[in-house]
Amino acid sequence: MTGSELEERYRRYIARLNDRRVHELEDFVHDEVVYNGERLTRAGYQDLIAEAVAAIPDLWFDIRLLVASGDRVACRLLFECTPQRTFLGLEPSGKRVSFCEHVFYEFRDGRIAEVWSLIDRSALAAQLAG
Amino acid sequence: MTGSELEERYRRYIARLNDRRVHELEDFVHDEVVYNGERLTRAGYQDLIAEAVAAIPDLWFDIRLLVASGDRVACRLLFECTPQRTFLGLEPSGKRVSFCEHVFYEFRDGRIAEVWSLIDRSALAAQLAG
Repeated sequence: MTGSELEERYRRYIARLNDRRVHELEDFVHDEVVYNGERLTRAGYQDLIAEAVAAIPDLWFDIRLLVASGDRVACRLLFECTPQRTFLGLEPSGKRVSFCEHVFYEFRDGRIAEVWSLIDRSALAAQLAG
Repeated sequence: MTGSELEERYRRYIARLNDRRVHELEDFVHDEVVYNGERLTRAGYQDLIAEAVAAIPDLWFDIRLLVASGDRVACRLLFECTPQRTFLGLEPSGKRVSFCEHVFYEFRDGRIAEVWSLIDRSALAAQLAG
């Protein structure tokens, strides 16, 4: 896959999350995936995303920067949303927040095999409290 | 510049930081650079890095993942170090810590024009306290 094909594939993955088909990731995610060093089944990975969506019903994955090369994708995602339940250990306060995730993916045979995600939890905490 | 030339250029930039020539970034950084949305002079940007090094004398920039394409670079940097002074508002505790930065760069004419950096401050805080 070329870099632009991988980009396109990743955009389709994100579109599926935004379509809320978070339990239909078989085309995009391997049977097993390593997420921040932890080995998960695809079902477990899908559950993680489903939990985030349950905590933040208006969670929208907005791709702001996308770099793809070889089997790797790096993405800066922006979230502008209003958490309704505890997320990353932070209680909702009814406030609308804006925060980013910087995330790297390793693809294998066109599907995600490993994820390294970093979410700006400090910014989120400050906005919920502030 | 091809992706691999840009990668190589970025690796030379990081080597310069690790050589502690943080005030000699003219070859790698534009006269003005936007850092997390804030417009800085190159001197101001260099000072930011110098402050981090002053707080953490054994700060070593360890490239763990690198994705380059077009004018963009994305990097996962690992730091294993012992902060000696306040860093990101966190007091040192004498503990050795391990934390990551996920950072995107926009290059223009081979030099950095914009930076979007996310540091895992939560992991750092937990380790300093824990």
